[in-house]
Amino acid sequence: MQALSPTDSAFLWMETRNQPMHVAGLNIFTPPPGSGPDYVAKLLADWRTHAQAVAPFNLRPVLRMGLWYWEEDKEFELDYHLRHLALPQPGRIRELLALVSRLHGNLLDRNRPLWETYVIEGLPGGRFAIYGKIHHALVDGVTGARMAANSMCLDDKERKAPTWALPFSQHPTGRRKKAAPGLLEQLSNVAKAGREILPGIGSGLWDIVRAGYAEGATALPFQAPPTPFNVEISGSRRFASQSYSLSRFKQIGQAAGATVNDVTLAICAGALREYLMTHATLPKKPLVAMVPVSLHGETDAGGNQVSLLLASLATHIADPLKRLQQIVASTTEAKERLTKMPRLQKMAHGITSISPIGAGMVTGTSEKHPLFNLVISNVPGPRDTLYLNGARLDEVYPVSIPTHYLALNITISGYGDNLGFGYIACRRSVPTLQRMLDYTQNAIAELEGALGLGAEVATATDSPVALRKKDTATKSKSTAPAKKVALAKAPSKAKPRKQ
Amino acid sequence: MQALSPTDSAFLWMETRNQPMHVAGLNIFTPPPGSGPDYVAKLLADWRTHAQAVAPFNLRPVLRMGLWYWEEDKEFELDYHLRHLALPQPGRIRELLALVSRLHGNLLDRNRPLWETYVIEGLPGGRFAIYGKIHHALVDGVTGARMAANSMCLDDKERKAPTWALPFSQHPTGRRKKAAPGLLEQLSNVAKAGREILPGIGSGLWDIVRAGYAEGATALPFQAPPTPFNVEISGSRRFASQSYSLSRFKQIGQAAGATVNDVTLAICAGALREYLMTHATLPKKPLVAMVPVSLHGETDAGGNQVSLLLASLATHIADPLKRLQQIVASTTEAKERLTKMPRLQKMAHGITSISPIGAGMVTGTSEKHPLFNLVISNVPGPRDTLYLNGARLDEVYPVSIPTHYLALNITISGYGDNLGFGYIACRRSVPTLQRMLDYTQNAIAELEGALGLGAEVATATDSPVALRKKDTATKSKSTAPAKKVALAKAPSKAKPRKQ
Repeated sequence: MQALSPTDSAFLWMETRNQPMHVAGLNIFTPPPGSGPDYVAKLLADWRTHAQAVAPFNLRPVLRMGLWYWEEDKEFELDYHLRHLALPQPGRIRELLALVSRLHGNLLDRNRPLWETYVIEGLPGGRFAIYGKIHHALVDGVTGARMAANSMCLDDKERKAPTWALPFSQHPTGRRKKAAPGLLEQLSNVAKAGREILPGIGSGLWDIVRAGYAEGATALPFQAPPTPFNVEISGSRRFASQSYSLSRFKQIGQAAGATVNDVTLAICAGALREYLMTHATLPKKPLVAMVPVSLHGETDAGGNQVSLLLASLATHIADPLKRLQQIVASTTEAKERLTKMPRLQKMAHGITSISPIGAGMVTGTSEKHPLFNLVISNVPGPRDTLYLNGARLDEVYPVSIPTHYLALNITISGYGDNLGFGYIACRRSVPTLQRMLDYTQNAIAELEGALGLGAEVATATDSPVALRKKDTATKSKSTAPAKKVALAKAPSKAKPRKQ
Repeated sequence: MQALSPTDSAFLWMETRNQPMHVAGLNIFTPPPGSGPDYVAKLLADWRTHAQAVAPFNLRPVLRMGLWYWEEDKEFELDYHLRHLALPQPGRIRELLALVSRLHGNLLDRNRPLWETYVIEGLPGGRFAIYGKIHHALVDGVTGARMAANSMCLDDKERKAPTWALPFSQHPTGRRKKAAPGLLEQLSNVAKAGREILPGIGSGLWDIVRAGYAEGATALPFQAPPTPFNVEISGSRRFASQSYSLSRFKQIGQAAGATVNDVTLAICAGALREYLMTHATLPKKPLVAMVPVSLHGETDAGGNQVSLLLASLATHIADPLKRLQQIVASTTEAKERLTKMPRLQKMAHGITSISPIGAGMVTGTSEKHPLFNLVISNVPGPRDTLYLNGARLDEVYPVSIPTHYLALNITISGYGDNLGFGYIACRRSVPTLQRMLDYTQNAIAELEGALGLGAEVATATDSPVALRKKDTATKSKSTAPAKKVALAKAPSKAKPRKQ
């Protein structure tokens, strides 16, 4: 039996029916050309032959003397974890999002290893989806997504064992002898080494963080305005997702002198502004987003060594370009501040980003004085086209965790030329979340218009990949996701899908 | 706001992730002849026009000063409660039972009215199923089933509003001004009237019950043996169900001089004996079943005025006829005892049967000294063929509640000539529950063989209705469920379906 780190344990302690603590990913696939309608059934039949799970997929939590441990589930039953489902006709993306919304609202069973994988058939054009759910106490979302990607292949002829049967040493995280230590553990190790003093969890830790903001910050802690997103949440969820072309974001960035991350934040800001205006709840002060950043290069697999930026989303500014400029100023300043911080401070800083509950743990984020309004994560993903059992991976969407006082989460996952936006929210606090997809589309068009990119760039129509039942005649012959975005000569009139 | 009765509140207080307190029903339908593949989608489109719910379907629980109240959900969202799903191909009953097993293990969201209705398409032959789930704090299983039946019609041309939109006054329970008082409330009212003294909940109440068993009972409290069914349960479920012909049970009863209820108990006993023998856990002492009985005739809708029998299942006896005779002796004695009891005692007696948590509340049922081993309920249902929006109701299955120390529940629902057996259990404590369907089939055949009914009666093959993809050529021309059981000249070799 292996004891959980304090951070991992916190995900179990803080979990309630209203606040489940699992992360998930939604991947959409096209079966290989010429495969029959029983392709998915055959895939499942093959997967069921891998009836044994390896760590961490065979571990369940047990409580002993007030501490959580992982122990092997001796009665592991694959049929419980691996689930076959179908969309009702007409099997639109609307039906898929409705299904994922429901699945994400259900608690895992703690008597068993904390994961469930749903293989969902019946999407348009014979496509299928996999919704994989795993408890944050077991792995964080980034690691989970990497493990999923690692069970796929670069070659459509290659085959690998399913994720739960793939030895951990073959996962990208496998270079570490055991699971990556949580941030708290890392901090604790640093402190034990005597190099710096760990002031403990709570306000003491927060003091370190706050020191970084002593003066002149654009986005200062405790200056985020109250919004409908910063309330206690209920147990039901709404998920909305759509993919956009990374090239399009890059062109906006080049024209405006901003990074892709800044453009992404600006597009989220535009969508949030429209959402809040529609609901007559746009605050006079700008929303503040918490943006996790890695302390390493993206090539390093140590995904747990992260810190955070607090960025102003400039939602009080009507002009889209000025809003983007304000966001660039805010993140530039925050990055400079981060660069100057000593390493421990960066990591203590990061405690609030390691987990969605971090902020509450450290600062007691509340309705009237939110530390920030929402988390926006931009997670790099695989750049090459991946295949699962010969089926091509088309779209990748992260499904993260809303928590009390952080009712909305936006996580964006890169894959080839796709940026997959995953909006997940408490269904009661954030009504009509699916409209955010329209607002996102509008925010992109608005920025392009302001930059005069409308005529040249908007021709790279972001007709959402998921909407297209088959590749159009104008598509590139390459099968790389980057080329799958349909090209059109005129600005798109395609409506984003609605849930 | 209306306060919940203490009994109803108990279902909320005692609910945990491992012990959800909802009941459900699984109904299987055949669409009207000539209806297209979009029949279910059209039904849902029609139902979605009934966007408002009437009480109790619009009520959510709120906790105020330590007491539970019902309040109207002002933001009632039908799309959350009404859910459209499909079975993956090949859409066998196996896939349906796997789906229901999973759905029944998920907690309802207490921020909303405590019910969910799943319309599931993709069954063989174009059939569809409705799994309806409602919290026991709102209605008990019997009332829930009656409400569902009442939203159907005797005529395939007639149409009614869906259950949640049908005014409560139009429900069979509508003759009462308000929801029927819980048994505790009834007891309390009796006591207040000064006619008899209510000794309170707990051991005092149990003293009244025990007095009925002062001497000579075949099934005495605290004499039930420990079994694998009397353990703490986990949060996952397995559901298994199958229909048998009531006529067949009646013929066994006539030949053996037993009631249909006794035959049903004997068949459950035979199945349980085989299950426990297979797992090498058959106790030397006979299992004791708790059997709810109504204090009124079946025609009275006051379904909450129930008492109970504790019946020996004679599982220690190998001979099926002797086992049946022993069960008849046990229930006869228990009924005589019940008849002699004063009314209050009957009802106090019944406190343990009003709810699956009753026994634990009153006696502290435990692993080593279970009061009884499982609950077996036989619920009368509609005798005539029912139609929903023109679709014929073929099969009806109850899905009840396993609880700590009562990991298995068997509830049987009558419909026409069908007896729908619903086995629901903790998936971990009661492994391979689906085999119980084979064992039930074996128990019927065994009794028929012992009574020499093999040649004549067993020809009424209980090839399960759900297995037949279409009616066979030998079927009767009537559409009444009673006639839908396929007739064959030779004893059946049909295998029961497996999950």
